[in-house]
Parts: sequence; structure tokens; C-alpha cells
Amino acid sequence: MRRTSFENWPCPVARVVDLFGDSWTTLVLRDAFYGIRRFDEFRRSLGIARNTLADRLRLLVDEGLLEKAPYQADPERFEYLLTDKGRDFFPVLAAMARWGDRWLTGADGPPITFRHVLCGHDTSAEVVCAECGEPLGAGDTEMTAGPGFPQQLLQREEVRRRFGADA
Amino acid sequence: MRRTSFENWPCPVARVVDLFGDSWTTLVLRDAFYGIRRFDEFRRSLGIARNTLADRLRLLVDEGLLEKAPYQADPERFEYLLTDKGRDFFPVLAAMARWGDRWLTGADGPPITFRHVLCGHDTSAEVVCAECGEPLGAGDTEMTAGPGFPQQLLQREEVRRRFGADA
Repeated sequence: MRRTSFENWPCPVARVVDLFGDSWTTLVLRDAFYGIRRFDEFRRSLGIARNTLADRLRLLVDEGLLEKAPYQADPERFEYLLTDKGRDFFPVLAAMARWGDRWLTGADGPPITFRHVLCGHDTSAEVVCAECGEPLGAGDTEMTAGPGFPQQLLQREEVRRRFGADA
Repeated sequence: MRRTSFENWPCPVARVVDLFGDSWTTLVLRDAFYGIRRFDEFRRSLGIARNTLADRLRLLVDEGLLEKAPYQADPERFEYLLTDKGRDFFPVLAAMARWGDRWLTGADGPPITFRHVLCGHDTSAEVVCAECGEPLGAGDTEMTAGPGFPQQLLQREEVRRRFGADA
């Protein structure tokens, strides 16, 4: 069955979940943040099938989150390095980890400790307003149609209601 | 084909992607933050098949992110309300949206505008260290095994390398 494509939806969350449509993609990227670069290292770390891993690496390269760089000439071997676009996804994973630690952790406590090297503390991610620095919560944030939202969709009743126009 | 389960991996990111294994789950939750509560409203907003929507709503209720509340007695009708656990996922979606706006936006600009009601500014999500308030970036953050990480796994070479023990 063909998966619905969310790539062109006028919603940044839909575009992200379209790209990360499969859990393995996120976990391969996670491993890149642990410093893993080579095919066999990803394979051992994740216990992932070779064809699945090859597919997810190709996707992350095609989408510009990883780049393929040769590290050996004969036979030719490649490693996978985070690009700026890939590295910039770290805060999203950190925000995910904080939610997972808070709501999906058993009695043993969090499996992973995050340490912020700059300040020297064990820490967790906090999501704040880029303007005022206060926590950005659902109750304090309004979403409205931005410049890239298709004008013709704004005529639809369910879209107007979503943005509070008919509330 | 049965999907690999990441639910019991000692990694908060793996546990989150296991729960949100399918894009629709994230998008149904997104719509709850737009104030959508009723089955037919979700269906119209997302253009999602009834059986898929019923399945994803059941999952979000089973996992405690939404709760089912009656709003009409005869015939009995239910609506789906965010719980504290569900509402607390908003910062993750906001962090995702910021990344999507930065890296997946076309020439038209971002499709959605976030406005922080408390400070009155159009804004985006920033992920910071909960201890010092500075941005939490990949290069400044170390991950090590936490209290909930299974001790026996720490003997494995690939796990030791992941946490820098054999680097």
C-alpha cells in the first residue's frame, strides 16, 4: 500500500513527519549524533537489516541530512557525516528525549543522561519562545496561517475553524 | 510485515518513535492542538480514512495522550481531549516545526505562524539547556548511560563506543 505523502502539506510538522515517515530513519540519525559514521557500525548498533539501513541512509543523504564521504580508496569505502541540516535536527531529538524521559520512563529512571558541556550540568531540553525565552506551551501559543499558506485553502470551513476564524 | 518494536530500547528517542511509528498519529495529535475534538472534524481536517483515524485515536487514548469524553447521551457521542501527557508533547511539535520551517520551506515562506500570547511576539521554538538556558546543540551535549540503562548492555563493544568509553 502506498503511503500518503505529507510533503506538500502547508504545515511544517507534516513535512517533517513525511521525511521521518519511518522510525528507522530517526534512529539512524540518532546514531550519527553518537559519532557513528560507517555502514557496519550503524548495522551493529541498531541491529538493522542491511537493505533497510541502505535505504534509510540513502534517504538521509538525498534529503541533505547526511553526506557520503570516501574514507578509503581501494576498495572504495564511504562514511556518512552530518550536514548542517542534519546537525540542526539535534534539538528536535533532545526535545523528544525529554518527553520520553518524562512520560515513558520506568522505575529505573532515564536510560540516557544528557550533559551540557558548556555549563557542565546534567540537563534536559527545554523548549522556549525564541523571543522572550519563556517556556513555549500549548496554552500560550497561537497558530495562524503564515505567508506560505495557500490562499485558496483559507476559504475552506475546516481550515478557517483551525485558525480560529469561525470559532 | 511486522514492524520492529522500539518500545523497550533503553533510549528515550526510540521509545517516542515507537509510539509515533506512523505519521498519522503525529498529525492527529497536531490537530488536537488546533482545538479539534470530534471524530468527523479530525476526518475532514486530515482527509484520513475512517478506519485509520479510529485506529490512531485508539492508540493515542490507550497511550494516555488523549482521553475520550462523552458530549452527547442519545445517541452516545464522544470527543477526544488532550491529557497532560498529550499537551506536554506540544514543545516537541514546536521544535519540529521550527526545523521544518528552516529547512523544508519553499520560496513562499513558512506556512504557519506561531505567536506566543504571553509576550505578544510572532516566534519560533528554541531548544535550550534546562540548567543554563543556552541553546542545546549537538556539539555541546554529551550523552552517557543513565540510571535506567541496562548494566549488561554496557559490556558490549558497540555500546561502549557509543558512550565514548572506547573512543
